[in-house]
Amino acid sequence: MGEGSERDIITSIERGFSVLLAFDADLPEPTAAELAAATGLSRPAIRRILLTLQKLGYVAPVGPRWTLTPRVLTIGQHYAATHGIVEVAQPHLMRVAERTGESASLAQLDGIDVVYVARVHLRRVLSLNVDVGTRLPAHATSMGRVLAAHADASVVDRIIEDGLPRLTDRTITDPIEFRDRLHDVRRDGYAIVDSELEVGFLSAAVPVRDATGAVVAALAYSTARGLHTLGDIARDVVPVLQEVADDIGRDLAELPDHARRVRLSARTSFS
Amino acid sequence: MGEGSERDIITSIERGFSVLLAFDADLPEPTAAELAAATGLSRPAIRRILLTLQKLGYVAPVGPRWTLTPRVLTIGQHYAATHGIVEVAQPHLMRVAERTGESASLAQLDGIDVVYVARVHLRRVLSLNVDVGTRLPAHATSMGRVLAAHADASVVDRIIEDGLPRLTDRTITDPIEFRDRLHDVRRDGYAIVDSELEVGFLSAAVPVRDATGAVVAALAYSTARGLHTLGDIARDVVPVLQEVADDIGRDLAELPDHARRVRLSARTSFS
Repeated sequence: MGEGSERDIITSIERGFSVLLAFDADLPEPTAAELAAATGLSRPAIRRILLTLQKLGYVAPVGPRWTLTPRVLTIGQHYAATHGIVEVAQPHLMRVAERTGESASLAQLDGIDVVYVARVHLRRVLSLNVDVGTRLPAHATSMGRVLAAHADASVVDRIIEDGLPRLTDRTITDPIEFRDRLHDVRRDGYAIVDSELEVGFLSAAVPVRDATGAVVAALAYSTARGLHTLGDIARDVVPVLQEVADDIGRDLAELPDHARRVRLSARTSFS
Repeated sequence: MGEGSERDIITSIERGFSVLLAFDADLPEPTAAELAAATGLSRPAIRRILLTLQKLGYVAPVGPRWTLTPRVLTIGQHYAATHGIVEVAQPHLMRVAERTGESASLAQLDGIDVVYVARVHLRRVLSLNVDVGTRLPAHATSMGRVLAAHADASVVDRIIEDGLPRLTDRTITDPIEFRDRLHDVRRDGYAIVDSELEVGFLSAAVPVRDATGAVVAALAYSTARGLHTLGDIARDVVPVLQEVADDIGRDLAELPDHARRVRLSARTSFS
């Protein structure tokens, strides 16, 4: 076959991903017509893309509907396989969960969002389902505040340019107040965010640093308001997070060379 | 732009995925030349695909090299978002880990492989890194034996046609013996596999059934040989797995309608 025009190749790949990502909680098992409506593509284009994704093993037909297959999970696994921090963090997240009795998470920045890269899930405190790969807006989460506080100024500018969307009555939406809070995070060494993402959702996060002192991820604890007060968390939970973050940093320094190089590149990719 | 020829669209999407998946433990941060060698694509094709993947946010340049970004994890998250069993299982996996002191996993079949769909990782007992999304050959794993034992005959035929590759001295490679073992799994209600995937790796698995009695996943415990004997595992661990698998099945039955529908479709996709 020919290589096609540059534009056609790019468009085809973009469309392939847009169809794959159209399968979500709102559309868990769509028909081709529902995928066409969701993506704005024509029915013939959807049909060609579905057959391609089926050939690749990522989708399967279920009568007139389509479903993602577990093979979709293997795509994300390539991030873990190429970024040593994901495996290194896992037993440490278990320790946070065991010592605090609540869920523990590791996240990195992707643009103006945080992405969960590892997680130990004890119980559900948020109305949405949070898994590895879930994206949340950085401005309203403790992990996002920690990562933004230590990111390049351009990252903070982009978060502010996005408008600091008001998600609850408590969300900080004023750029100056937001910058002040990032300053607090740098001074205090942690962030606690209460009900800014969703009412009743309370989380605390600390930076995870590599051997050079660069922040490579955020480690977080999350709970439901009412179960714990902010004072309890600052006194009891933050020291646990800081101790465990130090341990993760120490383990990162012991990774073999290639994994360490990758870890440093991960930092570059979100600065 | 035009829609391109059908063949060009399919080829472009296939190539996009092949470049994304070429980033792995052996090539965590490749150059364009390394990606060309790994995929068999031309340098100009690699360049176009990398720029497309960069535009989509999945890869980022690091000097002359390229790295995956955390956004890659968000692709896999769409599987969890559309298949309720992933979230349902998480606290139950924690219970297995807490009660046994070892890692717990949930897997589904993808062709002749098992794919980990959820996992609580306590310590590393396998030389390779196992995360959500990791694929392992079904014939040599306890989860694969459980899923194959309850799958359509065509699945077992495909596993056997693949040749039952010998991975260690203990791997069962004889088709008749393999079928006998699947029979044992159906009779006993569990599988224990000792050093057939990797010397010293020991795992036990049981089926997870939905309200209709259909097997929708396998729940497993894994440890290192020497820490525990097969007899210990059959006596102490298998009853824990069976109890927790029942609890997962009960929680699945309580999922809201759309998530239950999706769960049933997941079963269809691997039968």
